[in-house]
Amino acid sequence: MLGKLALPEIRELIATEDYTTLRDVLNHWLPADLAALLGHLSAADRSQVFGLLNTHRAAETFEYLNLLLQDELLATLDDASAAALLNEMAPDDRTALFEELPKDSATHLMSLLSAEQQRVTHSLLSYGRNTVGRLMTPDYIAVKSDWTVKHVLDHVRAHGKDSETLNVVYVTDNHNHLIDDLRIREILLAPLHEHVATLMDHRFVSLLVTDDKRKAVGVFRKYDRTVLPVVDSRGFLVGIVTIDDVLDVAEKEATREIQRLGGSEALDEPYATTPLLVMIRKRASWLVLLFLGELLTATAMGYYEEEISSAVVLALFVPLIISSGGNSGSQAATLIVRALALGEVQLRDWWRVFRREIASGILLGTLLGCIGFARIALWSTVSDIYGPHWALYGLTVCLSLVGVVTWGTLSGSMLPFVLKRLGFDPATSSAPFVATLVDVTGLMIYFTVAMIVLRGAVL
Amino acid sequence: MLGKLALPEIRELIATEDYTTLRDVLNHWLPADLAALLGHLSAADRSQVFGLLNTHRAAETFEYLNLLLQDELLATLDDASAAALLNEMAPDDRTALFEELPKDSATHLMSLLSAEQQRVTHSLLSYGRNTVGRLMTPDYIAVKSDWTVKHVLDHVRAHGKDSETLNVVYVTDNHNHLIDDLRIREILLAPLHEHVATLMDHRFVSLLVTDDKRKAVGVFRKYDRTVLPVVDSRGFLVGIVTIDDVLDVAEKEATREIQRLGGSEALDEPYATTPLLVMIRKRASWLVLLFLGELLTATAMGYYEEEISSAVVLALFVPLIISSGGNSGSQAATLIVRALALGEVQLRDWWRVFRREIASGILLGTLLGCIGFARIALWSTVSDIYGPHWALYGLTVCLSLVGVVTWGTLSGSMLPFVLKRLGFDPATSSAPFVATLVDVTGLMIYFTVAMIVLRGAVL
Repeated sequence: MLGKLALPEIRELIATEDYTTLRDVLNHWLPADLAALLGHLSAADRSQVFGLLNTHRAAETFEYLNLLLQDELLATLDDASAAALLNEMAPDDRTALFEELPKDSATHLMSLLSAEQQRVTHSLLSYGRNTVGRLMTPDYIAVKSDWTVKHVLDHVRAHGKDSETLNVVYVTDNHNHLIDDLRIREILLAPLHEHVATLMDHRFVSLLVTDDKRKAVGVFRKYDRTVLPVVDSRGFLVGIVTIDDVLDVAEKEATREIQRLGGSEALDEPYATTPLLVMIRKRASWLVLLFLGELLTATAMGYYEEEISSAVVLALFVPLIISSGGNSGSQAATLIVRALALGEVQLRDWWRVFRREIASGILLGTLLGCIGFARIALWSTVSDIYGPHWALYGLTVCLSLVGVVTWGTLSGSMLPFVLKRLGFDPATSSAPFVATLVDVTGLMIYFTVAMIVLRGAVL
Repeated sequence: MLGKLALPEIRELIATEDYTTLRDVLNHWLPADLAALLGHLSAADRSQVFGLLNTHRAAETFEYLNLLLQDELLATLDDASAAALLNEMAPDDRTALFEELPKDSATHLMSLLSAEQQRVTHSLLSYGRNTVGRLMTPDYIAVKSDWTVKHVLDHVRAHGKDSETLNVVYVTDNHNHLIDDLRIREILLAPLHEHVATLMDHRFVSLLVTDDKRKAVGVFRKYDRTVLPVVDSRGFLVGIVTIDDVLDVAEKEATREIQRLGGSEALDEPYATTPLLVMIRKRASWLVLLFLGELLTATAMGYYEEEISSAVVLALFVPLIISSGGNSGSQAATLIVRALALGEVQLRDWWRVFRREIASGILLGTLLGCIGFARIALWSTVSDIYGPHWALYGLTVCLSLVGVVTWGTLSGSMLPFVLKRLGFDPATSSAPFVATLVDVTGLMIYFTVAMIVLRGAVL
């Protein structure tokens, strides 16, 4: 777009202190683009450019910045500018900022707010940290069922300025009970003299102010909404939640899930800003747990020490065998965890999945087994590392791979069902758990096959 | 809610053929709830219940169903009912259905549409499969800059019925060029006599009809929008995309990413409906690739065959060592892949991450190393499996763990940077790749440490 000078040209305008042109250029930018620009500037330039925006644009832009930059910019503002900015912010975004700030600065900034906004912020912060209450804004439009469409439109024109959205208005009774929601389209399409009551169908979805934030994500997704009303336990309308805040919650949840799949406790803070020792503690807990599980491999191997002594070649394939089991197991676990999360597969489908995965495991295991056998056969033509019994070793590796991969696939696909049935989140470290389980049991499969195949010849 | 009988009661009403009561009950349900109900019924009951809904409610409900159920229900309808249903559907949801159906049934269903809807569908299907064109609907409201607010509201009331959303209207010039977007709030808040031109700020974001769907996801996220206009290469307004369709795209993308992280090609179809052989082929490709990598472990172990013969105890800890390296590597890889995806970490931050991860690796490795040493020390008090040199073995395992975990953490955190720098998606199997890499190199670290520590005493 025309107004979008590239970053070097913006830096040039800052360097030459040509603030008139700069302000002119930035006036054509959208708040999200301004926020992206601020992210690319040095701290000094950032504060300079931010100072050029009028309060309204500054607040809009500020809401797009991440917490680190919000914090940094707030520190550069005098109390009067900070007060103006904070008073202009949407209450839900302001709550999100306050709940992340250290208590001292939150208290100080809170004292800068107008009495009205202090009251709003106090009331929002009074809800539990993970509740819908922390996501909502009390700025919405409520109408009465005996109003005409014209009355509604006049009311919106007079009082809608501060409402977070005008896409939906809410119908309440005289006690502020929520009795219906009306999309603005229904209002706009109706004749002006029509009464709200005739537009109502009493079918609406609402959130409870004490609901878990994650539940809100599911409700938005199920009903394809962009905004939902929030009621308290008595059914009184107390606020609305918009989809942008819910998407932020969904993104954080996805991060937690992915981090757990990767075998780590959820960091719950950005990687870059998590203090090193906190991060190490969160990573250590899972690593140690998995390590304690893996210690069993040393025990299992100990049982077969004699076999290894008589046929050292057996030891050479241990990493290959257990990693193949682990790979097929975490592959299956990941597929099933995701299918469960998306609802493509239900708990009651476990038997169908079981049969599918047995078939997949046997086929995949046979494929890898054949490659393994071929590798040993080929190698034995150029080297005598495997000795005269190379074919028996090849057979051992091949059959073990069929067994280990089938077993890995099965345990990988069934563990998520078991975890879900027990009421746990199936994503919780399914993949690394499966790998550890399959490592230990894979060794037992391998040495058992070896003892059967090699009996008499080598062992 | 009052109207929500539980599933058994619904089944009872179907069984007793009390369709009047059933229709009454269902009339109080939201389309999303009706869709969920249909998903829980048997095929026969489903078709029965679906038949009770009027065309408008049926179409709304139908849009919430997944492709399998849509397909099944369509097959039970006669041509007249199918035509009524399809003509009533939103064009974007209809396009999504047609593009998934087999060509034959798509052609047949297309012929049932009204001439107008056939034209619309043909034009939407003419865009490439992964483009924004396939997501959009041509039903929007366009206004002119010289209209008054009253004119706009009258126009919306007369022509807005078919528009997918009335939350935003678009300002076009006489040649249908898009020149601005106006949120309905700006219209609703303005005096009736005001002109559209005075409300315009010429700051708008639009998508190109040939843009990749995934790009649309990023634009919606960056600008916090619920609907965006779509223009062709000449800047002509051709349609709008709403956030519900974009969220579906985002969910599919997340699934692809998670499946790749789990070491599988993306299935691109629901787990339950992917044909077994297709699924096995997609899973086999990665498993075989990783297996070929793991074959190097057998080669690496071969080099140390002599050491293993002289000290079989060494073999017992091989699974422990390599899995610890693998676990720490995939943990680090997952954290960094996610941080890169969220923009918390940039390519240029690699050196900072490198130093953080070296520190994490050494600390985590030392922790596991100490546990490993303690385990060997304890065991040697009750068993003589490790012989008189147990302390040397303990030291070997401990030092190797420090080395392998540090190396695993480093490679896990650096590989995503390398992949991203080379232009690949860092999520592409980073975790399993790292595990394979660390398995091979971990063995070399372990045996090198063993040769140094055990020289003279055991080797």
